[in-house]
Amino acid sequence: MADVYWLWYPGDFSIHQGMLQNFQREERSMDWPAYWYIDDCNRNVKFTRTYTLNRQTEFQVFARGKGYVDINGSKYPLNQRTTCQPGKNIVTIFIGNPTDLPAIYIQGDVICSNDGWQASNFVDRLPAGYDPLFTRPDQDPNMIKYQTILVQHQKKVTKNNGVLFDFGRAVNGSLHIQTRIAKSITLCYGESETEALDVKNCYYKQENVDRHSSIRKRAFRYVFVPDVSLNDVEVTAVHEYIPKKNNSKFETDNQLINQIWNVSVETLNLCSDVFFIDGIKRDRWIWAGDALQANLMNQYSFFDEEIDKRTLLALRGQDDIKQHINTIVDYSMLWAIGILNHYEMTADLKFLEVIYPKMQKMVDYLIKQTNDNGFIYGRRNDWIFVDWSKMDKQGTVAAEQLFLLQTYRAIITCGQALGKSVDQYQNKFTVLQQHLEHYFWDEDQGAFIDSYESGKHHITRHANILAIIFDLVNDRKKRLILKNVLLNDQITQITTPYFKFFEQDALCQMGEYRAVYQTILDYWGGMLRKGAVTFWEEYDPSQTGAQIYEMYGDPYGKSLCHAWGASPIYLIGRHFIGLVPTKPGYETFKVTPHLDNFDQLHCILPIKNGEVMVDKVDNQLTVTATRDGGVIEISDKMYPLNKDVPVSITVQ
Amino acid sequence: MADVYWLWYPGDFSIHQGMLQNFQREERSMDWPAYWYIDDCNRNVKFTRTYTLNRQTEFQVFARGKGYVDINGSKYPLNQRTTCQPGKNIVTIFIGNPTDLPAIYIQGDVICSNDGWQASNFVDRLPAGYDPLFTRPDQDPNMIKYQTILVQHQKKVTKNNGVLFDFGRAVNGSLHIQTRIAKSITLCYGESETEALDVKNCYYKQENVDRHSSIRKRAFRYVFVPDVSLNDVEVTAVHEYIPKKNNSKFETDNQLINQIWNVSVETLNLCSDVFFIDGIKRDRWIWAGDALQANLMNQYSFFDEEIDKRTLLALRGQDDIKQHINTIVDYSMLWAIGILNHYEMTADLKFLEVIYPKMQKMVDYLIKQTNDNGFIYGRRNDWIFVDWSKMDKQGTVAAEQLFLLQTYRAIITCGQALGKSVDQYQNKFTVLQQHLEHYFWDEDQGAFIDSYESGKHHITRHANILAIIFDLVNDRKKRLILKNVLLNDQITQITTPYFKFFEQDALCQMGEYRAVYQTILDYWGGMLRKGAVTFWEEYDPSQTGAQIYEMYGDPYGKSLCHAWGASPIYLIGRHFIGLVPTKPGYETFKVTPHLDNFDQLHCILPIKNGEVMVDKVDNQLTVTATRDGGVIEISDKMYPLNKDVPVSITVQ
Repeated sequence: MADVYWLWYPGDFSIHQGMLQNFQREERSMDWPAYWYIDDCNRNVKFTRTYTLNRQTEFQVFARGKGYVDINGSKYPLNQRTTCQPGKNIVTIFIGNPTDLPAIYIQGDVICSNDGWQASNFVDRLPAGYDPLFTRPDQDPNMIKYQTILVQHQKKVTKNNGVLFDFGRAVNGSLHIQTRIAKSITLCYGESETEALDVKNCYYKQENVDRHSSIRKRAFRYVFVPDVSLNDVEVTAVHEYIPKKNNSKFETDNQLINQIWNVSVETLNLCSDVFFIDGIKRDRWIWAGDALQANLMNQYSFFDEEIDKRTLLALRGQDDIKQHINTIVDYSMLWAIGILNHYEMTADLKFLEVIYPKMQKMVDYLIKQTNDNGFIYGRRNDWIFVDWSKMDKQGTVAAEQLFLLQTYRAIITCGQALGKSVDQYQNKFTVLQQHLEHYFWDEDQGAFIDSYESGKHHITRHANILAIIFDLVNDRKKRLILKNVLLNDQITQITTPYFKFFEQDALCQMGEYRAVYQTILDYWGGMLRKGAVTFWEEYDPSQTGAQIYEMYGDPYGKSLCHAWGASPIYLIGRHFIGLVPTKPGYETFKVTPHLDNFDQLHCILPIKNGEVMVDKVDNQLTVTATRDGGVIEISDKMYPLNKDVPVSITVQ
Repeated sequence: MADVYWLWYPGDFSIHQGMLQNFQREERSMDWPAYWYIDDCNRNVKFTRTYTLNRQTEFQVFARGKGYVDINGSKYPLNQRTTCQPGKNIVTIFIGNPTDLPAIYIQGDVICSNDGWQASNFVDRLPAGYDPLFTRPDQDPNMIKYQTILVQHQKKVTKNNGVLFDFGRAVNGSLHIQTRIAKSITLCYGESETEALDVKNCYYKQENVDRHSSIRKRAFRYVFVPDVSLNDVEVTAVHEYIPKKNNSKFETDNQLINQIWNVSVETLNLCSDVFFIDGIKRDRWIWAGDALQANLMNQYSFFDEEIDKRTLLALRGQDDIKQHINTIVDYSMLWAIGILNHYEMTADLKFLEVIYPKMQKMVDYLIKQTNDNGFIYGRRNDWIFVDWSKMDKQGTVAAEQLFLLQTYRAIITCGQALGKSVDQYQNKFTVLQQHLEHYFWDEDQGAFIDSYESGKHHITRHANILAIIFDLVNDRKKRLILKNVLLNDQITQITTPYFKFFEQDALCQMGEYRAVYQTILDYWGGMLRKGAVTFWEEYDPSQTGAQIYEMYGDPYGKSLCHAWGASPIYLIGRHFIGLVPTKPGYETFKVTPHLDNFDQLHCILPIKNGEVMVDKVDNQLTVTATRDGGVIEISDKMYPLNKDVPVSITVQ
């Protein structure tokens, strides 16, 4: 933290903005706040730091909120230049803000809001929070300044006695309207043309619009204006975004996979401004399940640590736990697992210091709902989700135990990184793992069953997938699972892209690259063939016509720009390029390419403080990393990677 | 609840407004937010009710916040007329509000926001909260509409090269300014003339004022405008207040005591708008100790149940406890004791239902910091206050144990009223009482000592006073305390009006009416002789000149309109008139007059749903009550009081 930032109580910026985000959903002109308990930031905060000065110095505090500056027990006003005398100066700034985030920015040669300030809500005291988005005194951390880009329509045609605009891409933003008619107009939006033209049922609509109307931020590709002629009205879209560095590139001789990669990156990019949201049209809410997957894709594309951190903080809220994250027990666990991912990706101990107490409270909250076997169960008002799939949920459920095991692993790893004692979690892990295998593993069927209490011995894919991706069973069992479950068509197929992500991950881990590659081409390629410019919340190749836009009983309920649709980023980066940190923050890392499907390939992937470039030209594979610590593994042979030294290997 | 109200999550109006109140302090142009953790209202709330309709009906939801109406699973917009069909209708209204209190008002013939709605924050579900202040759809429960009254100055004089305005009374409000000069002016405020004239050090000052300036709400009697001539400027005060019914009257043949009563009522009235605050100039914060005393005075003057309830809810905040109320351990206990007072005054079981879970969490929080003897001790960051007085605070402290005993009694009584099991609190009470007497009672000195762990056997008045007013020791010990402590000049005197309240209460309970009456005349009469128009935070008869305005090291730090200064209301009503409920809500009540000091007296005091009138003309005492259930006790004789039937008794 070399620079000067706006400061707040740690986590509060994300919690406050997260609340605003979860209030952003709109449906047919109605606001739809998320249906769970929502925290806000602290209202009353003090910031403290002690300076020992050699000479007199001046500073000025810019504040969002009301309060005062205290220097060694004397009060001074905010927003004025204040002088500190040589010697020891305890500077405390008290800020109350009844509506927004209490925040300060301190400008001064010596005394300024850089690293070293503590923030307190009068209960806990922690290093102050900050965000690279807010580094200037004229900013307001309560106002997200989006960058904007004008998007002209690519097509403008007369249709259904009105005018249809096609912007050719998914836009998340507002509109500029020019009309040459006296009457006001109606704006009908669509992620699809079908939706925009459906004046009655389209998800977003704004009526009585004239050039003075303020037009709400919405997500769309099409806008239809009914009851006007072609020259009556002109509409320009204003896309809003927070710029991210795209640290990745993926180009091969297969145009389809290239397009899948690019549309995936576009999809993830659109769903990741301040937070990872599920979709830009719907829900616009922050979900822990979706966020975990976005976090994994982010690692192979933008490598944006800030969105990770903001999302984890927003999901969790204030320290006291009122209910499970998004009311879903598994999502509380995926949140904790997300912290492990973030730590392994970044080795960010500073963030871990802030989040670990929250993680500990969450894990303790989970432990409180485990039984004598260590199995986690659902309580009244808890949602044991796992997936939209038929599952035998009588008594305790196998998939939840696998999430819990990985949660224990997450807190053990993170706790150890901070030098905390984690023996209790280690013990819980050991006991739970033994009981899981004893009660839920069905040796006759060679797979985990959903529930042992029901006596039905029913198998779904979910628990078995999790056992592989979290590496929670031995190789023998993994192979049994592959044969008896993953490659067994008798076991009900995964229908959601959410769990398909985990399934493809598991298949790759079991070496099924060919099958996964074909799935990517078929499933994601299938969406492209249907004209997708971003990937969808769900895709059923058998659906046709307006049917494909329906979901949750709503004719346009399906989100056509949904973060979890972008999973090819992760599958390609993690498994086909095979890049993975072997020590936190890529202190060491490995590249294990599986590129048989490509003759020509040029790929750049981010790592912490650097990047890895992989090129394949026919049989010649070349890997370059911009930092030390890497190794290439091909056919069980290891090739060390040194900073900026290309390593070329002939394959096959 | 016969009428239609704005609804919110129960407690949230008070918590949100309480936060705003605790941000209202101003000192020398700086804002001074209260220095403790401050809760805000819930941000995301849903309201639910089921109607079974015989015929179609319409309703309209007015909302503060964003959201929608759900009827049997279908969504409808807010702020529009919506129709419900005959049959069962589950109506749910979802409201998110990122900055203010989420609230709704429902207008309709059948479906309206009267009694019967439930509110949920998605964690807990309780009967919705409401307040008689907000009964119309055009109101906003985020805006307190104060009534205003113009106050003309009583004197306007040239002084110190400026003009001094004396409004003759304490004003809490703004100013209207008219100037006949081009330059802007400075406003210097004072509760005293000395303060207003002290341009440099006065507590409130606003510079660069012209007729366009917005003038902040402040408390003052005097305004001084420096550097202007008599005809340059005209200032009118605009006093703001929330009207209360004054249900009391107290007139005797002694003009001084009459004035003490009236100034007490004026003082309490000024400090009681939405909440009981400590003082109108300083701090303007809500303190549990001050509030408990205001609650007791309120019972004998305004009998305003709403201020009681709002204050109790605001002090406590949201359910999870972060720290002791106002950071003071004793204040957490006084808060619980205040609930007992309120219940005995009102018998309001509906409020008890809302507050009891919060009370239980508070008592459990207190129990967590008791030791094996059941004694409560202070933890890090806890403030064991008791009073501004030298006290031996080594180890556990006697006064805190007496507060805790009364706290147990409070939860036992309130719990029993709701039919809850209170055995655990009963056991704690019994054990603590035994240990208190065993460890803290010093039979040699015939009094409670501060600390037994220090071995110093030091006696202060506080614990001994509390033992009497909470009726926690037998009569023999009470008499010993009276002789050895209360009437013993060797024991350090109480110096704060806060504990003087409890002391005078104890003296009355021990029959020392003559002494207390004299104290009232001397101490409160002393302030009147010094020109007080309201009673002060502290009064030391030996102080003179500007010295009397100094407190906490600030030359004008003393509040000259401080709620606890109004304690004669309670002492007169509770002890001299002797009116007390003997069953909650005055279902039965007793009048035990001690009026030897008065030859002529006309007094009206409120009771729940009625009033009691006491007249004394020479030796003829006449008591009338507007409801049944009363009894007069004089010289151990009982005279029943029936509704509206005057009872006359010849005394002495």
